[in-house]
Amino acid sequence: MRSLILGGVRSGKSRHAESLAQAVAGPVTLIATGTAGDEEMAARIAAHRANRPSRWNVVEEPVHLARALARAALPGGVVIVDCLTLWLTNILCHEDPRMLDTEVEALAALLPDLPGVQILVGNEVGFGIMPVNALARRFGDVAGVLHQRLAGLCDSVVLMVAGIPLTVKAPEAGRGHHAGRRP
Amino acid sequence: MRSLILGGVRSGKSRHAESLAQAVAGPVTLIATGTAGDEEMAARIAAHRANRPSRWNVVEEPVHLARALARAALPGGVVIVDCLTLWLTNILCHEDPRMLDTEVEALAALLPDLPGVQILVGNEVGFGIMPVNALARRFGDVAGVLHQRLAGLCDSVVLMVAGIPLTVKAPEAGRGHHAGRRP
Amino acid sequence: MRSLILGGVRSGKSRHAESLAQAVAGPVTLIATGTAGDEEMAARIAAHRANRPSRWNVVEEPVHLARALARAALPGGVVIVDCLTLWLTNILCHEDPRMLDTEVEALAALLPDLPGVQILVGNEVGFGIMPVNALARRFGDVAGVLHQRLAGLCDSVVLMVAGIPLTVKAPEAGRGHHAGRRP
Repeated sequence: MRSLILGGVRSGKSRHAESLAQAVAGPVTLIATGTAGDEEMAARIAAHRANRPSRWNVVEEPVHLARALARAALPGGVVIVDCLTLWLTNILCHEDPRMLDTEVEALAALLPDLPGVQILVGNEVGFGIMPVNALARRFGDVAGVLHQRLAGLCDSVVLMVAGIPLTVKAPEAGRGHHAGRRP
Repeated sequence: MRSLILGGVRSGKSRHAESLAQAVAGPVTLIATGTAGDEEMAARIAAHRANRPSRWNVVEEPVHLARALARAALPGGVVIVDCLTLWLTNILCHEDPRMLDTEVEALAALLPDLPGVQILVGNEVGFGIMPVNALARRFGDVAGVLHQRLAGLCDSVVLMVAGIPLTVKAPEAGRGHHAGRRP
Repeated sequence: MRSLILGGVRSGKSRHAESLAQAVAGPVTLIATGTAGDEEMAARIAAHRANRPSRWNVVEEPVHLARALARAALPGGVVIVDCLTLWLTNILCHEDPRMLDTEVEALAALLPDLPGVQILVGNEVGFGIMPVNALARRFGDVAGVLHQRLAGLCDSVVLMVAGIPLTVKAPEAGRGHHAGRRP
């Protein structure tokens, strides 16, 4: 079971991920992709940490997400990735320009084979007027393509609106779509 | 019965609020939170006024929303708040930095006890690329947290898309969620 | 049958339009409204062209959309407009300031009478923080009003999220709403 949780800033994405994780009996690993590059980010990270169940195993991985996921995924366990957006920012701004393709391909190749439950959290950023700024425009494009691809690999997709999950892809529909590709 | 109507600019939020209000037999009070600070705002306010039924009672209140709501709410009556976004801008930019917390807490404390119907209108602003501008980022955060909180206190939440309400929280579900807290 | 497909950048709008078109037996005409004004646009247009079935008839029309639609629409045929947003940009920035009203009115007047299937694609741009930039704000307003109007004239409206269509207006509901205006 794989879920993609999209939503705007402060729309309840992390809390929804937590409630999904708590509905599973197994151990929970959180892969945190944010790095405290400035004061604002440090404050956001601290706030997330304070709200998070203390028994969770937390792994910080800003760049090599597929590798971290492969290590953390266990049968019966849950892995939360919070969030795709910071990871995408990190690989898009990485000094090695090939990092974006390498990491996205590694993630897409890995996901279908992972045991247990994965919950991927990302910001929906495409529904506003695109800034003139070229990096922001490229980010919007890259995030849109990534979310489409991950949505195809997930059983469930929701869009968080004011803390409430709006169903975009229901688990049953997901199984139906991919019926031919899974045992 | 309390409804939260979210949506983008010119997505039909005010018109939907009006149609909800007209489905109730009682008198309607509109709490208008906008102030004509510049020409663009003055034009927007004039356009709203021209479209609004003339028998509505209109109260202008840019800051003290809870107080205005407490005065306007009547059993069998309807109060529309249009809109939360301008009110939030007003209290976020208020000379007294405590105004934000004071007013949001007062609103959240008041809402569950109000008689009659309340319809709250706000702009969904979180689904785009966040501007670099610190005030805009703070506004996005504050609006997201406010919308989550109000959605929890409302029976119905919709997201307006191209003039059509997309159901985020249905009245029945709302009653179910809060079943233990109401008689 | 008329469909409006809204969505963010790289949300799968064009691909969804293509899959709707392929579900119809008749010939397909694509009205492409983009002009290769800069390198970024040229690259986007080339990418769309590469992904598009080669048997489609393609008409480039940046401004006079109603006229192009009137020529392209056939009983049993499909016309895709990709996209409303570039057309709106073109008429909003046109040297003749009346072009916006003239073209929007011509489109709205024409649509109800067209034979065959029409699929209109546009960017949802209203769910982010509005830029300070006056042209961007005006664009947001004009796009919101246009989408509301077109949604009223379409049988089906979807919002694309991560490549998946979220139903905003279902064909049956559309037929119901307009039951009195059609044979």
